[in-house]
Amino acid sequence: MTTNRLRTQHKLKLILAEAALETVPREIWGHPAVYKHARRRGKPPSSILLDRSVHHHAMKRLPNAEKRGRPDIVHVALLEALSSPLNKEGLLEVYIHTLNDYVIFVDPSTRIPRNYNRFTGLIEQLFQEGQVPPQGKPLLWIKPMTLRRLLEEINASYVILLAEDGENKQVREIVAEALENAPNAAIIVGAFPHGDFTPETKELATRVYSIYRGNPLETWTVVSHFLALAADMLNLI
Amino acid sequence: MTTNRLRTQHKLKLILAEAALETVPREIWGHPAVYKHARRRGKPPSSILLDRSVHHHAMKRLPNAEKRGRPDIVHVALLEALSSPLNKEGLLEVYIHTLNDYVIFVDPSTRIPRNYNRFTGLIEQLFQEGQVPPQGKPLLWIKPMTLRRLLEEINASYVILLAEDGENKQVREIVAEALENAPNAAIIVGAFPHGDFTPETKELATRVYSIYRGNPLETWTVVSHFLALAADMLNLI
Repeated sequence: MTTNRLRTQHKLKLILAEAALETVPREIWGHPAVYKHARRRGKPPSSILLDRSVHHHAMKRLPNAEKRGRPDIVHVALLEALSSPLNKEGLLEVYIHTLNDYVIFVDPSTRIPRNYNRFTGLIEQLFQEGQVPPQGKPLLWIKPMTLRRLLEEINASYVILLAEDGENKQVREIVAEALENAPNAAIIVGAFPHGDFTPETKELATRVYSIYRGNPLETWTVVSHFLALAADMLNLI
Repeated sequence: MTTNRLRTQHKLKLILAEAALETVPREIWGHPAVYKHARRRGKPPSSILLDRSVHHHAMKRLPNAEKRGRPDIVHVALLEALSSPLNKEGLLEVYIHTLNDYVIFVDPSTRIPRNYNRFTGLIEQLFQEGQVPPQGKPLLWIKPMTLRRLLEEINASYVILLAEDGENKQVREIVAEALENAPNAAIIVGAFPHGDFTPETKELATRVYSIYRGNPLETWTVVSHFLALAADMLNLI
C-alpha cells in the first residue's frame, strides 16, 4: 500500500529535450560520404541516423550543425535512466523530445540495446515503422509532437529546466522540489552537444536551475546524478 | 588551500575490475564470422576487440564466455567516471583491471571518444601500442598486472568491493566510509556482464557491500550513483 501510494505520489517525469536524434536530412542525401556509408549499410540515406562520427564532413552544409547528429547522447542517457533504481522501482517516466519535434515514448521495462550499433539500428527502425517492435505492444513509439504539447499530454505543470545559465541550486534541493510537485513535475535535460535551448523551450520552464555553478555537464551526467540523488532521498539505495 | 587539502584527503580511487575487455583470443581467430569481420575492418583478428554483438556465435567455443566480450560496459562506465563533477574537481582516480590481468591507467583529463566505434578503435590501438596516443604523454596506458599488484602500487589499503552478495549498505554510508579512509580507499566495481568476481578478487576486499539489497545493477549505474553521492556529500553539486 505504502508502495503504491509512493509510486503515484513520487513518480518523476524526465524529458531529454531537443535531442540530437534524426534521420539524415534531404540536403545531404547526395553527399558522397553519406551515400557510400548508406550503401555499405544496405539502406537508403533517408533511413539512416545522422551521426557526426560518420557524417562529419557532410554536416558542414547543415544549418545548426553543432546541435545535431549525436545519437550516442540519447543512448547513454537512456541506459542510465532505464537501468536506474528509480526506474526499476516504477518511479520514473522517460520521454525523448527531438530537435525536429518528434517525441519518443519509452516503456519503462524496455531493455535498450547495450551496443551502440544495435541501438542506432533500433532507432532507425523506430523512425521507419513508428514503433518497435513493429508488431504487438510497443516498447518505444514515436509521434510528431512539440515539447509544449508533450507537457500538456503528460500533465506536467511544474517544469524544471536544467541549464548552465539557470539559478545555482543543489541537485538535492531540485529533487526535493520535483518530488513536492510530483506527479506533475517534469525535469528537462538537453540532449544536444553544444549551444543553448531554443527560446520556445525556455519559455515552458517554471524554474531554470544550474546544478554545477554555471559549468557545462554531459547529458548523461546530469541524468545519472539527478536519478542517484532521487534514489538516495527515497531510500532506494 | 582548502581545495588542495581537500584534493589530497578526499581523492577516491575507482577500479573497474575483471573488465570484459580483451582482443579476440587465438582459439577463435579462424572462426568464419571473426575472420570476415576482421577483414572488413582491415585488421588481423588478433588486433580486434572481442565483442559479443559481433562475435556471439564464435564465443560459444570460449571458456567463461558469459563474462567476456563487452567493451561497451567499460565505455559507458568511463564516460560516467570522467565526465563526473568528482573527476572534474580532481578528486577521482580511475583504473581498469581486465579479466586477463592487464591494468589500464587513465589520465583524468582524458576525453574518451563518445562514439562507441571510435572508442573500440582507441582501445585496440592501446592494446597494440601500449599507450595512446602512441607518442608523447599518454592519456591511457596499459600494463600486464594483477589486481593485487595494482592495489599495492596505488597504496589502496582499504578496499571496498561492491557486489550483490555483500552486506546491504546505503551508498551514502559507503561513500562516507571511503572518504574516511581516503586517499587509501579503493572502490571496486565489476565490469563484466554476468557471473561473479573470482575468489582471488574477493580475497582482496576489506569490505563487501551490496547497494541495492542484493539485486544486480549495471556497472555504469553503480559507478554513476556512487560518484553522484560523493559529489553531493562534498558539496560539488
